[in-house]
Amino acid sequence: MKQRGEFGLIELIKEHFPTPEGMVGIGDDCATVPTSGDDLLTTTDMLIEGVHFVRSKSSPEDVGWKSAAVNLSDIAAMGGTPVATFLSIALPRDAQGEWVERFVEGYAAISHLFGVPLLGGDTTSSLRDIAINVTVEGRCERGRAISRRGAQVGHTIFVTGALGDSGGGLKALLDGDERTPEVEYLTAKHMRPMPRLAEGRELLTTGMVGAMMDISDGIASDLGHILRASGVGAVVELSSLPISEQLATFCGARGLNKFEFATSAGEDYELLLTAPAELATQVSFPLYPIGTIVEGEGIEWQLDGEQTEFNPQGYTHF
Amino acid sequence: MKQRGEFGLIELIKEHFPTPEGMVGIGDDCATVPTSGDDLLTTTDMLIEGVHFVRSKSSPEDVGWKSAAVNLSDIAAMGGTPVATFLSIALPRDAQGEWVERFVEGYAAISHLFGVPLLGGDTTSSLRDIAINVTVEGRCERGRAISRRGAQVGHTIFVTGALGDSGGGLKALLDGDERTPEVEYLTAKHMRPMPRLAEGRELLTTGMVGAMMDISDGIASDLGHILRASGVGAVVELSSLPISEQLATFCGARGLNKFEFATSAGEDYELLLTAPAELATQVSFPLYPIGTIVEGEGIEWQLDGEQTEFNPQGYTHF
Repeated sequence: MKQRGEFGLIELIKEHFPTPEGMVGIGDDCATVPTSGDDLLTTTDMLIEGVHFVRSKSSPEDVGWKSAAVNLSDIAAMGGTPVATFLSIALPRDAQGEWVERFVEGYAAISHLFGVPLLGGDTTSSLRDIAINVTVEGRCERGRAISRRGAQVGHTIFVTGALGDSGGGLKALLDGDERTPEVEYLTAKHMRPMPRLAEGRELLTTGMVGAMMDISDGIASDLGHILRASGVGAVVELSSLPISEQLATFCGARGLNKFEFATSAGEDYELLLTAPAELATQVSFPLYPIGTIVEGEGIEWQLDGEQTEFNPQGYTHF
Repeated sequence: MKQRGEFGLIELIKEHFPTPEGMVGIGDDCATVPTSGDDLLTTTDMLIEGVHFVRSKSSPEDVGWKSAAVNLSDIAAMGGTPVATFLSIALPRDAQGEWVERFVEGYAAISHLFGVPLLGGDTTSSLRDIAINVTVEGRCERGRAISRRGAQVGHTIFVTGALGDSGGGLKALLDGDERTPEVEYLTAKHMRPMPRLAEGRELLTTGMVGAMMDISDGIASDLGHILRASGVGAVVELSSLPISEQLATFCGARGLNKFEFATSAGEDYELLLTAPAELATQVSFPLYPIGTIVEGEGIEWQLDGEQTEFNPQGYTHF
């Protein structure tokens, strides 16, 4: 991280993130981290104002939380442990004060929750829109990171939690819905996704998982990535999808199809994985079986064991 | 890197960057790289249209080259070897075709020159301005990365090449100067900086370098970082600064002070280092001595051995 001291932001970030022993953080040309014989995992995501978030709809703390969370989720999806994050942020003049201070609060909250240091980044100005880029590095035992390529015929397809809540929350936010208890729950799921890091690690240690990824675009799209990477197909049972009471109530009151949200709305950041069925009894947290890997390609959607016409539309950015 | 296939860009990037054996690149939740017992170096920089470059003044190829070069230069400044790069790019509609194709050409050109794979990133849209973030990972023998903190009283201060050319080139571009041979040379230095990776590695292997960094903001500012980090001062001799014939001619014809460019214009991406004077005879490339580390703080500027009133203004973004 360069030390140009823009907006006093580097000082603020240093207060939130002291550099751990044995690492070099903010204030030199590069961060340095000692490595072992592990595999290094790296993921990066960019968020642009007006495309990924709208200042009038999202608190700065929530944008900070989410910009770290979505990258930590990618580390979880490989079964890895996060090692460090790097934050680049470009700020127009009207975001250089309170907005960015509150952003850093949210970013620090989730970083500290998972014990991940921030070791560098870049701060600069922009003419009009906020641009944020987060890079997260993690580690994983050599050759053991769980890719998308290992789904096998006969594997059960599991998810780690409720699907569609985030999409329901986004719709409520965009529609300006009254903040009922359901809406509060769903919008919190949208704004503060929780990366499944502990679950990802535990899943890796079982040695039983074939393929795994995190659900960013909805299972209709994301399961497709696993199927194509593995050269297999899937049957998914809609009645088995874990759908929260809150999403069911929200959809029921508005005449919306809860299965659309559960399959296509995305941003749930639960883990989606394939493994022998008995995996469910080998881990300390709930795994929800939603279908089976079969020969062929693509997803056959069933409802109560019968093929349906259901055809999810796939994720669309708002 | 997510595979949302925006603008066909991921396919384009994959054509330019096949993933090396033993690594996982584009197409999973994270890139994976095997590590040894080395230190991992990481640096990241963000470039925003209208702040760091102007589309009407810079070719897309040059922006692509430079966005990788400035990060590779940070790896050089630690004495490291680059391992992989990660590119995030947000594109407004009118940059999603030819502009980004040409950008990738320039990015690939410097990456291939130094043999560095691109292993991931993010592609997304923006409403108005182009935003680019590059992260580069490198490696270095455990504990041997050269920081800014090791300057010692009595060390000679060296640079690896001509100072101020990039600033002269920027001025010529902004003023729309006639493209004389000097202007061609200076603008090329500005648009296509060459990271001193081989030099940085060789300097590390000597074991003689105290402190080192790359010159991004000009020596007036950058040497200040080394002095503060090391708790020392410096005397710099203006007549010893390596200044190209082309910059001298350019400044002479316009009544400009070449020392201002050489000390304050920045973006030369030469290495700035401190070491015992005999280092100059131990390496295979020219090192230019420009001054001496002394007790105290700050920089005393001398001209022909006499203290001068010269007071560089420091770097200002255009």
